[in-house]
Amino acid sequence: MNPTLVDALADVVGGDQVIVEGESAVRYLTEWRGAFTPQAAAIVRPADVDEVARILTVAARFDAAIVPQSGNTGTVGGSAADDPRRQVILNLERLDRIREVDADNATMTVEAGCTLADAQRAAEAAGFYLPIQLASSERCRIGGNLATNAGGLNVVHYGNTRDRVLGLEVVLADGRVWDNLTGLRKDNSGYDLNDLFVGSEGTLGIMTAAVLELADPPQQRAVAFCALADVAAGVSLAARLRRRTGQHVVGCELISAQALELACDYSADCVVPFATRADWYLLVDVAISAPGDWLAATCEDTLQDAAEEGLLVDHVLGKTPETMAALWRLRTSIPPAQTAAGASIKHDISLPVSKLPAFIADMTPRLHAAVPDIRPCIFGHVGDGNLHFNLTRPVAMEDAEFRRHEADLHRLVHDRVAAMRGSIAAEHGVGRLKVDEIVRLKPAVEIDMLRAVKAALDPHNRLNPGAVVRI
Amino acid sequence: MNPTLVDALADVVGGDQVIVEGESAVRYLTEWRGAFTPQAAAIVRPADVDEVARILTVAARFDAAIVPQSGNTGTVGGSAADDPRRQVILNLERLDRIREVDADNATMTVEAGCTLADAQRAAEAAGFYLPIQLASSERCRIGGNLATNAGGLNVVHYGNTRDRVLGLEVVLADGRVWDNLTGLRKDNSGYDLNDLFVGSEGTLGIMTAAVLELADPPQQRAVAFCALADVAAGVSLAARLRRRTGQHVVGCELISAQALELACDYSADCVVPFATRADWYLLVDVAISAPGDWLAATCEDTLQDAAEEGLLVDHVLGKTPETMAALWRLRTSIPPAQTAAGASIKHDISLPVSKLPAFIADMTPRLHAAVPDIRPCIFGHVGDGNLHFNLTRPVAMEDAEFRRHEADLHRLVHDRVAAMRGSIAAEHGVGRLKVDEIVRLKPAVEIDMLRAVKAALDPHNRLNPGAVVRI
Repeated sequence: MNPTLVDALADVVGGDQVIVEGESAVRYLTEWRGAFTPQAAAIVRPADVDEVARILTVAARFDAAIVPQSGNTGTVGGSAADDPRRQVILNLERLDRIREVDADNATMTVEAGCTLADAQRAAEAAGFYLPIQLASSERCRIGGNLATNAGGLNVVHYGNTRDRVLGLEVVLADGRVWDNLTGLRKDNSGYDLNDLFVGSEGTLGIMTAAVLELADPPQQRAVAFCALADVAAGVSLAARLRRRTGQHVVGCELISAQALELACDYSADCVVPFATRADWYLLVDVAISAPGDWLAATCEDTLQDAAEEGLLVDHVLGKTPETMAALWRLRTSIPPAQTAAGASIKHDISLPVSKLPAFIADMTPRLHAAVPDIRPCIFGHVGDGNLHFNLTRPVAMEDAEFRRHEADLHRLVHDRVAAMRGSIAAEHGVGRLKVDEIVRLKPAVEIDMLRAVKAALDPHNRLNPGAVVRI
Repeated sequence: MNPTLVDALADVVGGDQVIVEGESAVRYLTEWRGAFTPQAAAIVRPADVDEVARILTVAARFDAAIVPQSGNTGTVGGSAADDPRRQVILNLERLDRIREVDADNATMTVEAGCTLADAQRAAEAAGFYLPIQLASSERCRIGGNLATNAGGLNVVHYGNTRDRVLGLEVVLADGRVWDNLTGLRKDNSGYDLNDLFVGSEGTLGIMTAAVLELADPPQQRAVAFCALADVAAGVSLAARLRRRTGQHVVGCELISAQALELACDYSADCVVPFATRADWYLLVDVAISAPGDWLAATCEDTLQDAAEEGLLVDHVLGKTPETMAALWRLRTSIPPAQTAAGASIKHDISLPVSKLPAFIADMTPRLHAAVPDIRPCIFGHVGDGNLHFNLTRPVAMEDAEFRRHEADLHRLVHDRVAAMRGSIAAEHGVGRLKVDEIVRLKPAVEIDMLRAVKAALDPHNRLNPGAVVRI
């Protein structure tokens, strides 16, 4: 603790918005996965962008570092401050306004501390749909969604968070504010700084607000659940549905038999809607804002054709809200079921969609060779090539014993992903968790570029030091 | 000319691929709009990425600068070298291969020297559609499309070129190659370097190849041409069509009466399909890869509703290839008609869609006050907020006299765009043409960031110096 730093921060935000220790500090210093034990000189809670800017000026004066935090729901330690002498957690919760909905531009301007769910509700109230869909929507906040370029359940159609951003407000390391809340769909008047800040995890600037592009609310929707012939059949089926629906597959989740079994064992609400069993299943959500009644019929035709060709061995198509929700539960129950099933070693990987079948076929025997009776609980967003390649401990093994395999299993999976030109940080970011692994696996030329960009925008390493890339 | 530099370049590519002067140099040193008179120490034509890398090494050794060029069809002097002592034009035409089409990933890997039309044909041959649609497709090349983040006629649905890019191969200033041809749809393992290079106009690295995401070929299509009540009605109609078609407006062009009149006077192939006349017209192209017959009917219903509400005063809906082509000619004939009508002073601007009506209403009297009888020949991509705000000389004024108003008219238009938070370089880039104007109009904090990024990746100012931003 540094009393003069704390005093200077209190001058900016008021004494009650600077937290140094005690019970009120706990939630800002808790990393929910338990992988980090955050420590900070203080937590500061500004009310608006001007206060954020002044905090950065104070940080410069005291050579303090700023670790931005919004919902603190990340999975890679991106806001887990780790230096109690120099680092200050800058919590953005109080910047929680919807500044504007511009209906004719189909955009909304939202502050970083707004929860995703509040932003979604504001969009809905204005007759739109904000298509960032995360399980944590009531707790995660826009600032974190932007900082991690959050993915989620509907990237296959709507893209990542970055694809929604039509402008930013950013406080730079030196305390200056870049107000680029323009809402432009075309702007080639310089380098793409918006896209550079999005996904930079608070290491290049503090994003305090964004203009997000809105979509129109779906008017037709259906959800298919299919038992597949194999993984390749799932890839092929997803592509057919994409093409036949006019690119309106909005969710496309691959589920392994093991993952489905865990979910059904875990929750009485999870019931596979047919007796057929397979090694792999596919859940496909199709939706479009065009009114009409053709979408479900097109989907059913496509599934019938695929069944005749042997791509799938059984399927149902849900058309009511209740059946669609029941089918989605088969997927959304997997993460809590997995938590309940004992220790898991997780990987957030992506590959070109075309390489997923080979990757899975290649990895499966290696995993069983490394840890006999390991339970690969694999599921994820196959439409965009992103799998949660999660490995659950054998039924008969203690958590602690399984954890001893963690480094080896990470290396086994990551090395293969890297060899196939995939990403080991597909949608959750790098944070503090994967900094060293990125350096190990990326070519030196890329690490050099990341460092050069970091040094260019944060020359004194004042913004979230230790995350993404070290300089 | 520097004989040792030229010799070293010839060592890399062979003597016949280094051009120093004479007739064979002309086309590389011609800027087709006539705004620049390019000069270079040499033109060098590498065959592959290794030769590009070695050329950069040679440039470092001789402290030469590299101006990349592919199709040389740009409009802002981006490849117009301007230093005959230091600058070498690196022409990429010979890197013209389609390296791969990955059907299961819906991507293609294309080299920078490939023409856009050749890339489109390769996509089509593989059953896909490459949705970058530019008038110059047979002459422009992928490298330039990437370097300028080219826009074009279908950005409203498919996005800019940047939105197509799932990976790049880039030669850096120091001659190292960054091979990031991954084809990933999700990758948060570092800053978004892909998006940083795209649109950087050759000033941060030389893009030699890209992985482009492909779309599915349209199966339903229709083209509407409407006489509007006013500009605001056009904005509203475009939004309704977007929503009712499920976001399948793929082209959305606003056309002023003056622009339409020029086109019809210029070409006998341009015939307005109804007798009604209005101040503003809207051309809307709708398309979707889903088979069926609902799209045109939905479009017609929406137009009928809009007519009853007074948004439009007349319309036709073309459904055959011939009628759709005839309607598009009303738009595509405008640029040549404008060229034939005498000198024009052009602006490539964008605004939030919601602000376009106010901008046009505000500017029109100012233009007439500045130059009585000026002919504002305004058209463009209203769906994404981008207008070609082009001003043609009065009928009775000489070109040279009109040109004397150029600086004043640029300032009049650009100042208003800047005041409304728009872009003065929406889809054509900055090049050498708008470097000073960008500095004049952007906040200092943004120019400082552009310079910092440039200096980080090109510390010796070796890549296209003088374009985009000066350091």
